[in-house]
Amino acid sequence: MPQAASIALAVHGGAGTIARTEMTPAREKAYRDGLEDALRRGHAVLRSGGSALEAVETATKALEDCPHFNAGRGSVFNADGQHEMDAAIMSGADLRAGAVASVHNVKNPIALARRVMEKSPHVLISGMGAFEFAHREKVALEDDQYFFDQFRYDQWQRTRGTDVYQLDHSDDDRKFGTVGAVARDAAGHLAAATSTGGMTNKRWMRIGDSPVIGAGTYANDASCAVSCTGHGESFLRAVAAFDVHALMAYKGLSLEEAVREVVHVRLPPLNGDGGLIAVDREGRIVLDFNCSGMYRGHVDADGTVHSAIFRA
Amino acid sequence: MPQAASIALAVHGGAGTIARTEMTPAREKAYRDGLEDALRRGHAVLRSGGSALEAVETATKALEDCPHFNAGRGSVFNADGQHEMDAAIMSGADLRAGAVASVHNVKNPIALARRVMEKSPHVLISGMGAFEFAHREKVALEDDQYFFDQFRYDQWQRTRGTDVYQLDHSDDDRKFGTVGAVARDAAGHLAAATSTGGMTNKRWMRIGDSPVIGAGTYANDASCAVSCTGHGESFLRAVAAFDVHALMAYKGLSLEEAVREVVHVRLPPLNGDGGLIAVDREGRIVLDFNCSGMYRGHVDADGTVHSAIFRA
Repeated sequence: MPQAASIALAVHGGAGTIARTEMTPAREKAYRDGLEDALRRGHAVLRSGGSALEAVETATKALEDCPHFNAGRGSVFNADGQHEMDAAIMSGADLRAGAVASVHNVKNPIALARRVMEKSPHVLISGMGAFEFAHREKVALEDDQYFFDQFRYDQWQRTRGTDVYQLDHSDDDRKFGTVGAVARDAAGHLAAATSTGGMTNKRWMRIGDSPVIGAGTYANDASCAVSCTGHGESFLRAVAAFDVHALMAYKGLSLEEAVREVVHVRLPPLNGDGGLIAVDREGRIVLDFNCSGMYRGHVDADGTVHSAIFRA
Repeated sequence: MPQAASIALAVHGGAGTIARTEMTPAREKAYRDGLEDALRRGHAVLRSGGSALEAVETATKALEDCPHFNAGRGSVFNADGQHEMDAAIMSGADLRAGAVASVHNVKNPIALARRVMEKSPHVLISGMGAFEFAHREKVALEDDQYFFDQFRYDQWQRTRGTDVYQLDHSDDDRKFGTVGAVARDAAGHLAAATSTGGMTNKRWMRIGDSPVIGAGTYANDASCAVSCTGHGESFLRAVAAFDVHALMAYKGLSLEEAVREVVHVRLPPLNGDGGLIAVDREGRIVLDFNCSGMYRGHVDADGTVHSAIFRA
């Protein structure tokens, strides 16, 4: 029986086709170190009585700052050779939310999303407008060099000038997808955060599911907090994160049942490769995916940090 | 008992605080003529065996072309004195969807949203990227003069240079909010479309609920098709359109009950002034709102066109 005051935290660093054969022990350690560092930082917030909102922002910032993951530093190149990033955060206590889409040169897009939630009348702002807001709010900016990564650049060069866009989930990739966090704090409040650098060679200021409340990110104290990763277009069409909530709130499913339904029944017919992490109001955690692997981790009830990439 | 082959169509032209005292017979006639023209065009598509998708696009284009409504021609001015438009379309048969956000100079944003659905790998594109895609797809473009409207311009001048943004629902406004359409075709397929010019003096490339699948627009043959209008941020946080679907699919509510729950129970605590139109798989239509009026209309079973603004 979970305790009423139990705190809970989970993170992901993307999901997709992850080839075991290409995963050396050193690379696996680098990813898992990144996940576990984010978990420790977020958990410290919760342990000291901080809010779920603060914990998911802290954990997601750590993942954005880690160049191994496709978010913040380490984001992929779009078709114009730039880094366009998306992020969203949601508070389950009051259903407040903030998000940014196609923003550039912002060190921590998740911090900007939280400013949108707290300092603007809007939920979702985008592009140059989001950059202007970042400047006004004095959030940390970085020049293009900060985001540059040789692997990402080479990856882009292979698709540059073509109509090929590349989900950051391909076989030859050493870094994968989106990052995100979900948490329950000691007061019983839930929160979710998601951040991504999108797809290599993406065009037309494409917006995926990550910054869309209900699709890639959702939190509601009545049910659960969810952060998704995978083929964004499918998650948008499935309204995946809110669907987990709805299956719990309206159909009475447990968190595990609701996540299984969305990940293994709803998403596959829409080519929805990917996965999600979720926490319910009792602090139970589910991490599930329908592809070969998902960078993921959580902190268990006695405070031990766990991370994994492939299926157990 | 509705017939299996019954076709159905409804449209809206926005909801909000509409003052009866400012509504002259001539103005009321102009709005209702616009709604009824859109209904007749969309219904002609359905009567000749066309798809729900084609019908909602046709009806929405008619509303975009009518300068009385805040979408396409007649869109409001943003803080930079430009017209930034959003639109989305969704097919209930296969859950395909397309949307554009913050796009400019596109005559019919809803037609561009359909191209995104059918000709791109994406669901949602934005800003200059959406304009580039429009140019590539050779959709009709118009210069700024086409979108210019003296009333909208004067409206913007009153808030220009301030932090005030204005939902297009204010007392002194003669044109209101978003437009949209929902339909059921003879084959039993559902579709929804929504298009908007956003808020006067809006900043930071704000994106509202209209182009967000699940928030302002949703269609699923299993349940219903929905198009929303109102305070976009609230509808985003409520994931309003998908919630109507979820209440029907998971809780067994009728269309009328599900719409009532979302419009009168879920949205008001989030300051969610507005309304929505919806059609279910049997062709039943519901048009509901929680504010003083909603420009709306539908075609009944015997083909008669109805329109209304205030509560009956």
